[in-house]
Amino acid sequence: MTQAVDLTEKFAAFSDHWRPRVAAQLNGQDVRLVKVQGVFPWHSHADADEMFLVWKGRFRVEFRDRVVALEPGQFIVVPRGVEHRTAADEEAEVLIFEPSEVINTGDAPVSDFTAPQGQTV
Amino acid sequence: MTQAVDLTEKFAAFSDHWRPRVAAQLNGQDVRLVKVQGVFPWHSHADADEMFLVWKGRFRVEFRDRVVALEPGQFIVVPRGVEHRTAADEEAEVLIFEPSEVINTGDAPVSDFTAPQGQTV
Repeated sequence: MTQAVDLTEKFAAFSDHWRPRVAAQLNGQDVRLVKVQGVFPWHSHADADEMFLVWKGRFRVEFRDRVVALEPGQFIVVPRGVEHRTAADEEAEVLIFEPSEVINTGDAPVSDFTAPQGQTV
Repeated sequence: MTQAVDLTEKFAAFSDHWRPRVAAQLNGQDVRLVKVQGVFPWHSHADADEMFLVWKGRFRVEFRDRVVALEPGQFIVVPRGVEHRTAADEEAEVLIFEPSEVINTGDAPVSDFTAPQGQTV
């Protein structure tokens, strides 16, 4: 892919929550775009670090012992194996960097939050 | 790293051009922040795809046969092996996502543009 990709345009192309879309792939990693609202299940990823960069809105990454609140232009890396959940009181738009094989709900039981893999935007 | 990282704050912490700073590492990849102005040497990376996401200003990725102009919130992935150079008429701020071992000038001769590896911010 050597075309310009516009984040605002890509986020405008879908509206469901907790359903990441793959906007690019490189070096075995995905750039995923996701709209979130509400609270995601607790989980971890044994073999993958995850980066969350907030594009729009307010977003939280919750750990068992603390909460990290993020605004647009702020990011966090959740190291592999660390239990966490993500949350937003109002809709937020988030860019995720992680290995292409990552399932969004990690080691949590499959649920309505478990997204199909490889949906592109 | 499980702290919030603020891109505006990180970009304010350095001022030199063409000297990427590592803002985070995950899954063998770097998140690098760079300020650019002028024209970078032609080069390619045999084993690494490179993503450029514009944070501030106007930025170009030039290929031998065309130019892709990017504005804030737009990104491009340059596939491994593809010759390119980056450029900006006025200072721009760019987030780069690429494997941690990548040298910024790739297969071009070492020059003043060749940045030290692993400088953090």
